[in-house]
Amino acid sequence: MGNDNIISRFNEDFDRYLPALSVDCVVLGYQNGQLYALVLKWKNSNDWSLPGGFVKKDEDLDRAALRVLKDRTGLDISFLKQLHVFGGTKRRNLTILNQKLNSIGVNETTKTWLQQRFISVAYLALVNPKSFTPIPDPLSDACEWKPLHDMPQLLFDHNKMITYAKNYLAIQIKYLPIGLSLLPDKFTMKTLQKLYEVVLDRTLDRANFQKKMLKLGILIRHEKQMSGGAHKAPYLYSFNELKYHDFLEIGFGFI
Amino acid sequence: MGNDNIISRFNEDFDRYLPALSVDCVVLGYQNGQLYALVLKWKNSNDWSLPGGFVKKDEDLDRAALRVLKDRTGLDISFLKQLHVFGGTKRRNLTILNQKLNSIGVNETTKTWLQQRFISVAYLALVNPKSFTPIPDPLSDACEWKPLHDMPQLLFDHNKMITYAKNYLAIQIKYLPIGLSLLPDKFTMKTLQKLYEVVLDRTLDRANFQKKMLKLGILIRHEKQMSGGAHKAPYLYSFNELKYHDFLEIGFGFI
Repeated sequence: MGNDNIISRFNEDFDRYLPALSVDCVVLGYQNGQLYALVLKWKNSNDWSLPGGFVKKDEDLDRAALRVLKDRTGLDISFLKQLHVFGGTKRRNLTILNQKLNSIGVNETTKTWLQQRFISVAYLALVNPKSFTPIPDPLSDACEWKPLHDMPQLLFDHNKMITYAKNYLAIQIKYLPIGLSLLPDKFTMKTLQKLYEVVLDRTLDRANFQKKMLKLGILIRHEKQMSGGAHKAPYLYSFNELKYHDFLEIGFGFI
Repeated sequence: MGNDNIISRFNEDFDRYLPALSVDCVVLGYQNGQLYALVLKWKNSNDWSLPGGFVKKDEDLDRAALRVLKDRTGLDISFLKQLHVFGGTKRRNLTILNQKLNSIGVNETTKTWLQQRFISVAYLALVNPKSFTPIPDPLSDACEWKPLHDMPQLLFDHNKMITYAKNYLAIQIKYLPIGLSLLPDKFTMKTLQKLYEVVLDRTLDRANFQKKMLKLGILIRHEKQMSGGAHKAPYLYSFNELKYHDFLEIGFGFI
């Protein structure tokens, strides 16, 4: 469906959507020792934003977030975690919004609808960038992974949403397992440690990290593959998914 | 302000509020070894609900939750934590809603507005019941603490909100400090342990609990008061608020 079709359809049926409420998706990926977020480039512009959209009047909120993510990026997953509701009165710059709306050719009624104050529910997903190919929707010129440490200025409060997600992860990693959806099926202890270091933003002691991770009991160690330099190859690990999911429910915890 | 005044004012100015969005507050209190939630009894009925309300068009969402809580219960606090957005299409039973609306005498326009689908942001506060006296608002006959284990059937999905809050606490207590806003300034180790046991829904070993709590470094031990049976009196503790708040930011964590 082309850009014009999307807009003209929205001009006709924006009334199918709940007013004043949007969803935005922070999709974080991990690769080569870095965290990335999935962002869209608006058509014929240099503006970037998170994949976001609206909630149909007959659609559950959480379901809407999954649909919006799929429609806008091609990413088809089964779960998004509610992260935070961004509900400040000044979260969208109306001047910039109007520029965007004029450039994509919505009609005046739709424009009035879109200019309302919107509150946005931000959702979070952690994915392995290798597991899917982003597809920009008809409103976008590009759908790309951008590294968190070099994120462009995004529209509205979307940079704040990414920062919120990053801070949230840095706490969550202390009491919930992480990595199952971010890493390949098999990985080295070094790879896992690097993920922790990136999320926590500090280096960790190698021996201590390995000891703690093994003690949790969520890792399965695999045989080294026999090859020329096999004796030097590091062990590969995978997650014990049953135990991993148990801990997702109850947390590691000090008590 | 009387009930009729509230309703007639709302009949006139419901347009001041964002459509389709409400806030509901789960206020949990701890006393005598039990968790309680603060609930309102609707005027001239046997229906109970959480204190909830709407968001003004010129009001930040988080600010609206604090105002709603104060207006409806008299509780004036500085922070409510966003807990979860309840966004299912069927979360409000419209038959029951209509009964409620007919019984309080809203006009037809207001009724149509209130019958829209609403999505609700649930907020959480933990308070010491001794620190304030609940005051029912003009829409309510009573504002009371009800024990979680004997909660009446509440309107809409409000029992689910309380269950969500309880489950949330049972995870959070494993990596964040708890008790500062729930307990009196000074408390015994036994009192603190009982709070943990109630939230976790299991008994804990006394010696092990004391060892772990002291190791965290968030407690200050006070001198026993010298009196007749002083040698048998247990130590009193208070929280080191600086360290307590540090841990609220970073979590205890296994890593």
